Amino acid sequence: MKKCIVNKKLSDKPGVRNLIEICASKGLQYVIISPGSRNAPFHISFNEHGFFTCLSIPDERSAAFIALGIAQQTGMPAILSCTSGSASLNYAPAISEAFYQKIPLLILTADRPDEWINQGEGQSIAQRNVYQNYITASYHLHLDSNDPDNLWSNDRMICEAIDIAILERGPVHINIPFREPLYNTKDYSDVPFPKISSILKRESFLPFEFLSSTISSFFSKKKILILCGLMPEKNEDLNTILQQFSDRAVILSETTSNISGENILNHIDPLLTTIDQKESKPELLITIGHSFISKKIKLWLREFNPEEHWHISEDKNANDVFQSLTQHIRVAPLTFFRFLLLKIDEEKIKPSLAQMDYNHLWKKKSDDILIKNISFINNCPWSDFKVFSKVLPALPKECNLHMGNSSPVRYIQLFPMREDILYNGNRGVSGIDGSTSTAIGAAFIHQKPTVILTGDVSFFYDSNAFWNHHLPDHLRVIIINNQGGGIFRLIPGPPSTNQCDDFFETTHSFNAKGICDTFNVNYYSADSENELDEIMNFFWENQENKRPAVLEIFTPRAINDIVFKDYYKKLS
Amino acid sequence: MKKCIVNKKLSDKPGVRNLIEICASKGLQYVIISPGSRNAPFHISFNEHGFFTCLSIPDERSAAFIALGIAQQTGMPAILSCTSGSASLNYAPAISEAFYQKIPLLILTADRPDEWINQGEGQSIAQRNVYQNYITASYHLHLDSNDPDNLWSNDRMICEAIDIAILERGPVHINIPFREPLYNTKDYSDVPFPKISSILKRESFLPFEFLSSTISSFFSKKKILILCGLMPEKNEDLNTILQQFSDRAVILSETTSNISGENILNHIDPLLTTIDQKESKPELLITIGHSFISKKIKLWLREFNPEEHWHISEDKNANDVFQSLTQHIRVAPLTFFRFLLLKIDEEKIKPSLAQMDYNHLWKKKSDDILIKNISFINNCPWSDFKVFSKVLPALPKECNLHMGNSSPVRYIQLFPMREDILYNGNRGVSGIDGSTSTAIGAAFIHQKPTVILTGDVSFFYDSNAFWNHHLPDHLRVIIINNQGGGIFRLIPGPPSTNQCDDFFETTHSFNAKGICDTFNVNYYSADSENELDEIMNFFWENQENKRPAVLEIFTPRAINDIVFKDYYKKLS
Repeated sequence: MKKCIVNKKLSDKPGVRNLIEICASKGLQYVIISPGSRNAPFHISFNEHGFFTCLSIPDERSAAFIALGIAQQTGMPAILSCTSGSASLNYAPAISEAFYQKIPLLILTADRPDEWINQGEGQSIAQRNVYQNYITASYHLHLDSNDPDNLWSNDRMICEAIDIAILERGPVHINIPFREPLYNTKDYSDVPFPKISSILKRESFLPFEFLSSTISSFFSKKKILILCGLMPEKNEDLNTILQQFSDRAVILSETTSNISGENILNHIDPLLTTIDQKESKPELLITIGHSFISKKIKLWLREFNPEEHWHISEDKNANDVFQSLTQHIRVAPLTFFRFLLLKIDEEKIKPSLAQMDYNHLWKKKSDDILIKNISFINNCPWSDFKVFSKVLPALPKECNLHMGNSSPVRYIQLFPMREDILYNGNRGVSGIDGSTSTAIGAAFIHQKPTVILTGDVSFFYDSNAFWNHHLPDHLRVIIINNQGGGIFRLIPGPPSTNQCDDFFETTHSFNAKGICDTFNVNYYSADSENELDEIMNFFWENQENKRPAVLEIFTPRAINDIVFKDYYKKLS
Repeated sequence: MKKCIVNKKLSDKPGVRNLIEICASKGLQYVIISPGSRNAPFHISFNEHGFFTCLSIPDERSAAFIALGIAQQTGMPAILSCTSGSASLNYAPAISEAFYQKIPLLILTADRPDEWINQGEGQSIAQRNVYQNYITASYHLHLDSNDPDNLWSNDRMICEAIDIAILERGPVHINIPFREPLYNTKDYSDVPFPKISSILKRESFLPFEFLSSTISSFFSKKKILILCGLMPEKNEDLNTILQQFSDRAVILSETTSNISGENILNHIDPLLTTIDQKESKPELLITIGHSFISKKIKLWLREFNPEEHWHISEDKNANDVFQSLTQHIRVAPLTFFRFLLLKIDEEKIKPSLAQMDYNHLWKKKSDDILIKNISFINNCPWSDFKVFSKVLPALPKECNLHMGNSSPVRYIQLFPMREDILYNGNRGVSGIDGSTSTAIGAAFIHQKPTVILTGDVSFFYDSNAFWNHHLPDHLRVIIINNQGGGIFRLIPGPPSTNQCDDFFETTHSFNAKGICDTFNVNYYSADSENELDEIMNFFWENQENKRPAVLEIFTPRAINDIVFKDYYKKLS
């Protein structure tokens, strides 16, 4: 835990001073502040304190996604501070994403005093519990006061809020009413430090005898499928240990799991197109992570339901997207697989022939797909598919890749996962809002190259991501501009309607150049394979100046869906 | 009520068909649709029906403000339709503004079936009651079904929702879960029409004998102040009748009231700077409208509390921003003043000498201010103040003026109100979000010139307002670019902090040209008085092409606050 620096220029509101010191003491370093008057005590105190790194982001919608990106990388809550009124509501999309993606945030909304709510004062709405449908916990502090009981109660709430954000991995809201004046500061050198209370971090544990009897069935199953969903951080230990199960179980992973390696199979959708879905049904399904992307695997497992489905996660609730859950085993996946391995070693249990057969079947299909992919890509015309096939292998080493919704993240699943890359995507709610801002927040932490691969609709939606003074120069934005929401041409339904162009795809001829000019971001573009080949290295190097860069790649709207469907036709 | 057109291509979901027919039957013409798959039944049906005018707006935040602008002008609920997930949360800022500005909206959020919420499905959040802190009413429809009881219950809810939006003047939310398939259509020619139920429109009435005894005190008061707050539509009758009270009461109006005329005094803040605040305290305060802009008048009336304060409005609740409310008289202001006039005529009550003295005092101060204003403007250097003094008289005749938050709407109060102009401003919550989008929605209805006068921060915040295919060519956007949130230099507090530039004002050197280029909007700019004089007519005429136009006026950030403070110094 980092040391706190006592500073003499904090807000004269003692509750603010205590909040600031508690945040510092619990190691919450990053603060995203949006301008406003009501939250002035926070502007002043977070900046003057000395411990915090403060970013000023005017659009609260973007600010909250930037905070999400920071917290995604650090694993610690990023702090958000906004003024009263609708400012807080602009945070809402990112808060819902944090809630479902399980990312910690500490949201501080300044408020008018309670008595002035719904009395016609400007910039005031009923802010208490305003995020109640999608928040891990909500608090409302006592008005700025010197009353020791109020202060003690505030401190308790603040300590609990931060610990819950960390332990439950989710967004936590503190609403703070302030009376004017808002700008005064005070010397606190003689005022005692707030008392810091902590929730002791629970350790993963389960009565292992109990677990032991349960998982003994693991060894009797012939067809075991381990499926890896969203886990935003790389976990090398988990990655390594999983490899050791690859002769007993088929391990499928989506890129968002950050689980990869020789015996981990990707490209789930192509696999499900080529396997015999009935024959390949698992007897035991084990899931780790959450928010699975593949619609095909959901439909498959719902139809061909495994006899048992264990979900391994410390979370309080499991969801049951495959309609097959039989056990939610509340331990960390690493603990679980370590225990399993211990059993194997102790009892020298070998993989059964049936288990090996099952694995062999999937592995063979996977190898076939890899071969077919290469031949398909070689003959593939200029299209979204082609672009992904060229861009993905060219991504900088050890970069952090952000996958925009909705078609980029789906396309990326069709290509081999790279072990050096950290994959992230806003798959909690899977909105098209905020992907660029999230990448900017992440880039701020991930000091190596950070790349966002996004569609044009998602890019324009979040173009205010660029409206701030904190853009890291190692940020690279790749926009696949197919003149509208290309996803609507890939799914069945929209193309058959009269509304496809205007109300689903919302076709347009806009490009990102003007937005890049506005915010002084370097701009590159390509609309053919040759151009892309020529420009790509310049784009990665981007030696023009110390600014981030955008590469906008134009693809033919009317061909993309044909190529995509042709890919699946050629597979089967 | 307009006739419905029976069309054969509506969604095959009978609940959707009934909703569409009820909306048509109740005359809700405008539908703002944001792309998505889950709301496909609405895309298809609203478009195919024939009665509706549908706009496709990809960014839901902007879409909701556009709907607000439409409803502000028509007085009828505009319909919003979005897909499931965080899309609905991007509506939130505009919904809160509609709630506090008292603008009717019908918000249709498509949802996944209940059983799939919180089970890890993409684009799903807990959407029921998601706007509960700032919504007039919320409904959750029965899942698409053919069950007659479900359908009857849905129809009841839809009818009630629309009527409540109209009668209570506020946003109403209907959440609608849909099962796949989403894209099928059906011939309804043989299916009976849904039964339309209506809430009879209540008429303003009060037991007038009761009112009579109450208001007899009106005639005994020496100092009566009528204060007019936000009323988004012009009400000529009310305007005319109020003039007839100008010898008995001082009538002060903010531009948002749309009450103006010879004996109606504006520029409240300058008046309160020059009057003797104690001597001028009213005995009776009568307020109509809501959301008062002037902070000075709030502070004045809270300190020098009138003996009686009547708020005249049909609304269920009154707020008490002056801490002085004694009667909330729940009739329409027009009814109230008509009744009062009737009393005056019947009983031939003349204004008292004391009443006339009180009025004379205010009128004289007001005349002095008008003279001082002219001399101040003549000697005023290039600054925000100067720009407003030049732009306001030059606004096209009978235009609809949208006043951005926060400094534009405040500056505009310092200048004489024009009777030909319809003034609007998002003063419900007074956020800086969504002003341009609101103006675009309004322009879509108000076929005459529509002008938004906005600051640079507010403009950039809402630059996605331009991201659609529906920009009316009679839209004019004037950006006063003072390189940051100029308001923070006008209020006491921020300039004294170390955080003023970066965290309050958030200074920048961005301009709007690139954004205009991106969305094919004509761009003009000026950074001196001469340039403004030269360019203004070209800007109004804007004969280049059939596109809207932006005029960006650059003013010196460090001088604006000096001029503004100097203005008040010269007044007193």
